[in-house]
Amino acid sequence: MALSTKPYKGARDFYPEDKRLQKYMFRTWRQAVERFGYEEYDAPILEPLDIYLAKTGSEIVDEQTYSFTDRGKREVVIRPEMTPTVSRMVAARRQELSYPLRLYSIPNLWRYERPQRGRLREHWQLNVDIFGVSSCNAEMELISLADYIFKSFGADHSMYQVRINHRGLVNEILNKYLALSEQSAYHVGKLIDRKSKIDQSSFLSQLDEILLDKEKLANVPEKLLRILSAKSLSDLPDDLKTSKDYQELAELLDGLKLDNAIYCPEVMRGFDYYTGIVFEVFDNDPDNNRAMMGGGRYDGLVGLFGVDPVPTVGFGWGDVTLANFLNAHHLLPELPPESDVYVCLVGDQYSLAQPLIMSLRRAGLNVSVDLSGKRLGDQLKTADKKSIRYAVIIGEEELKSGNFKLKDLQNGQENELTIKELVATIKK
Amino acid sequence: MALSTKPYKGARDFYPEDKRLQKYMFRTWRQAVERFGYEEYDAPILEPLDIYLAKTGSEIVDEQTYSFTDRGKREVVIRPEMTPTVSRMVAARRQELSYPLRLYSIPNLWRYERPQRGRLREHWQLNVDIFGVSSCNAEMELISLADYIFKSFGADHSMYQVRINHRGLVNEILNKYLALSEQSAYHVGKLIDRKSKIDQSSFLSQLDEILLDKEKLANVPEKLLRILSAKSLSDLPDDLKTSKDYQELAELLDGLKLDNAIYCPEVMRGFDYYTGIVFEVFDNDPDNNRAMMGGGRYDGLVGLFGVDPVPTVGFGWGDVTLANFLNAHHLLPELPPESDVYVCLVGDQYSLAQPLIMSLRRAGLNVSVDLSGKRLGDQLKTADKKSIRYAVIIGEEELKSGNFKLKDLQNGQENELTIKELVATIKK
Repeated sequence: MALSTKPYKGARDFYPEDKRLQKYMFRTWRQAVERFGYEEYDAPILEPLDIYLAKTGSEIVDEQTYSFTDRGKREVVIRPEMTPTVSRMVAARRQELSYPLRLYSIPNLWRYERPQRGRLREHWQLNVDIFGVSSCNAEMELISLADYIFKSFGADHSMYQVRINHRGLVNEILNKYLALSEQSAYHVGKLIDRKSKIDQSSFLSQLDEILLDKEKLANVPEKLLRILSAKSLSDLPDDLKTSKDYQELAELLDGLKLDNAIYCPEVMRGFDYYTGIVFEVFDNDPDNNRAMMGGGRYDGLVGLFGVDPVPTVGFGWGDVTLANFLNAHHLLPELPPESDVYVCLVGDQYSLAQPLIMSLRRAGLNVSVDLSGKRLGDQLKTADKKSIRYAVIIGEEELKSGNFKLKDLQNGQENELTIKELVATIKK
Repeated sequence: MALSTKPYKGARDFYPEDKRLQKYMFRTWRQAVERFGYEEYDAPILEPLDIYLAKTGSEIVDEQTYSFTDRGKREVVIRPEMTPTVSRMVAARRQELSYPLRLYSIPNLWRYERPQRGRLREHWQLNVDIFGVSSCNAEMELISLADYIFKSFGADHSMYQVRINHRGLVNEILNKYLALSEQSAYHVGKLIDRKSKIDQSSFLSQLDEILLDKEKLANVPEKLLRILSAKSLSDLPDDLKTSKDYQELAELLDGLKLDNAIYCPEVMRGFDYYTGIVFEVFDNDPDNNRAMMGGGRYDGLVGLFGVDPVPTVGFGWGDVTLANFLNAHHLLPELPPESDVYVCLVGDQYSLAQPLIMSLRRAGLNVSVDLSGKRLGDQLKTADKKSIRYAVIIGEEELKSGNFKLKDLQNGQENELTIKELVATIKK
């Protein structure tokens, strides 16, 4: 039986036109983050299972990992996220590295989930982290960087919204203001994280299941709903406004000076490791109604590797949600193929034409040669099908005279040119 | 207990300085292959096990794969090589694609083997393939491209040797000239592939185990050794010189015009899918005594996916052997860090300095800002430790006057400059 030609479910083949789009996104990401002083790192796609057990969150680890036992009996995972990996790497060189340390990577990540719009089993994710800064200047820099990246893609503030919250303030709300038990607080936190994906009535019924009787009697549901409907920090009850975390969040929102950044009490980010400010960017297009990217402060993760903790803020940004965003807002540029010129060979001139072809390459042109031996008309059709703009025709006569026919396949124009003229024309 | 900070055995963490080397290699690879008209593709790292069962070779599949059963009960493998994947992708669009089709990729690949010099469990590999050309112009192009890539890295012919053979000629030798049984021929082929890794006496004893009595009586060992000692095609017995495959190989060697390309009867390449010319490039450094890259013709692989076969030639080239080569021959360039300039903040100027910092970025500079709040001297030390060449000092006075101190950390020079002058100086 013939083998299947399909890629693995929920993952993508990238043909050259798909890869060009991905390369454009990666290039734009790289240039922007390097402008902010971030340096690229990378790591193996396999990690020991135990680095995710502590803080990644049980939904991902128990239900969504690609985990298995290797031939040496190690429990390993194809990484579902990059944060534990970069924390491990920083811990390994805790003393030698100098801070602030700025790192980025664009790893591919794997999660076993139902493929759907904006969510696949394999995706690439820009990961940006700053280590060693405890002040909220770190959050300020990362959110400004995210905004700078959007601008680099040609986006404006009407297209996306920055939503910010503070895990410390959430704890303040759950533990002190609502006076929830430890267990109720944990589960209500998880429920808030899911709120945007479920309707109001099932939110309320799930809340009802979590709360203890005395919590219900204390009007927790009503108070919680009021807080979750806050449109700005000033809408919060006065009791909360004296907290350090409230102040920090207010300072950040004020310092950012972004007219599309808001306080959003529903933003939690799934991971258990966040300790401070958390943020995400929402795509304003109704078809892409989800967080495109997000991050926050996680001061405790490096310390799990047996060294002193390092204050850290980071974000992750997936390629699938970015591509959907660029598509929806018509921000995709035209991406020409890699080859500048297609060489059509007339007669058996392959060997004789080599020096000429190599001289075009040395002049900096990307040259694709037709080796099919087909008729000239068919070779030109191939060039056109490959969307290559120029074709040059090389036969016995041309090699003798040193004059070559250059055809512009965009407008049909033909010119007889010397090699020098030909190179100049193609380079425009 | 604290988590381990080590990467998975046989795989590498890439800190920024390691990643810079990898990026330099990938960039040089990409530019060279695009000069020859190749277009980049990619695919998921997970593939169904069955695409390797047919032709990859049992050693790799049975002993070296990272294979497991996913949560949906599919038998999957982290790809050990890219050739079956690209064949699958071409088969999936057999009709729509236009030929000659030139594709390349730089995937990471996984094999469970004992880590050793030049061989790790995870490595990256440049894969270059040309589809749709049955003449040996395809092999000519790929070997010329490999040579061009070496030149792009600054190498010359004294540093490496191109070794070429023909699977058809090997079959001719085993089946006709030595008249081996089908089974002996298969195992002798595998033994030739291992020959460079074992000594003469164990080669002979293994040969003795494979051959049937009548084959030993016909002097097969002696004849085989004579053939394997051939230094050029003309050393082969006359009986073989009339074969089509001999002629093709002679034509290729002649057409290549490379003074470091030789016929080598020992070159087999491990994979079962090769059908014609095979080649590899050896590093001449005695410490790197192995093939750095290799490839050949495999006309049958696309056809396994239920479509008409497509003639194909390809090669693979690993990043580990390339790095060893560049190191041994002193071809590694200096690779500066991503950041052009380090901003030292004096006093609490972070917010006020933002417009200035952003203007440096918009001018095209990569700017890293010290957020530590440490003394100026310590901030300068950090810049130096990060190997960033320039530091600019921003305090209250500088923001008022518009003149900034720029320090060249390479030679200690200091200058008071306006922003415009500063940008010009850093850009040289």
